[in-house]
Amino acid sequence: MNRVIHDIGIEPQRVIDTDGGTVLHALKAGDSSFHGFGEAYVSEIGAGRIRAWKRHRRMTLNLVVVQGAVRFVIHDDRPGSPTLGVYQEVLLSRESNHARLTVPPLLWLGFQGLSTPMNALLNIANLEHDPEEIDRAPVEQYPFPWPSA
Amino acid sequence: MNRVIHDIGIEPQRVIDTDGGTVLHALKAGDSSFHGFGEAYVSEIGAGRIRAWKRHRRMTLNLVVVQGAVRFVIHDDRPGSPTLGVYQEVLLSRESNHARLTVPPLLWLGFQGLSTPMNALLNIANLEHDPEEIDRAPVEQYPFPWPSA
Repeated sequence: MNRVIHDIGIEPQRVIDTDGGTVLHALKAGDSSFHGFGEAYVSEIGAGRIRAWKRHRRMTLNLVVVQGAVRFVIHDDRPGSPTLGVYQEVLLSRESNHARLTVPPLLWLGFQGLSTPMNALLNIANLEHDPEEIDRAPVEQYPFPWPSA
Repeated sequence: MNRVIHDIGIEPQRVIDTDGGTVLHALKAGDSSFHGFGEAYVSEIGAGRIRAWKRHRRMTLNLVVVQGAVRFVIHDDRPGSPTLGVYQEVLLSRESNHARLTVPPLLWLGFQGLSTPMNALLNIANLEHDPEEIDRAPVEQYPFPWPSA
């Protein structure tokens, strides 16, 4: 469970406290995990709620938690992958672990809200939304032991 | 005060309630207000706090409120502008007015947090942060009558 899926990215991002408020970095065009801009959107998820599983065939996700805390779980079922069968858990938190999670195509992703009242994540994707490149599976299909939030 | 500065943009964005939570649209590469991707970051501002004034010489801002509500004020002091001297107020709210505000270069921008406990705005800018292209002025310099939040 602790092995790292080799081609995801986890990059700490700056949290800058200024006089007027806090600035949370997310992504720059010069970052190595930038793969082009297709669309940016924010997903909210309540405490304890789980959204799983979704797999993108072509989209690379760049994910930053902008409110609360989120447990991400990535499952690798790619034939021939050195981390075939692995589930990797990544906890990102606005307060205590501000980082960007980069998920390449063909990995299964689920996530769970952890803080009350609300959690929100920003996705900066390299493609516009296209239902044709998304696969979905019910949460039971890949047996990750989701803790209660 | 009610005249609209002709070259800013205000585009309503979709709020999609799904089974697992809400998705807030922000920006797509195909949108007419997309001017390239340089950097994305989130700014937080507490209720009643004001950050003013800042002017970008080259950056176009695409702003979406992802938490709470924010009053934006745009001041036009561009010589020869058809809206020279105008102050325009734009209220965006996660709950009641989800829209994207596009601010071209050379306009002065200030903003104020309106909701408790916190407000947050996402900026998707066409340039990476560069202090050389930013001008700042104290809030007193342009006499907008900021209400108390």
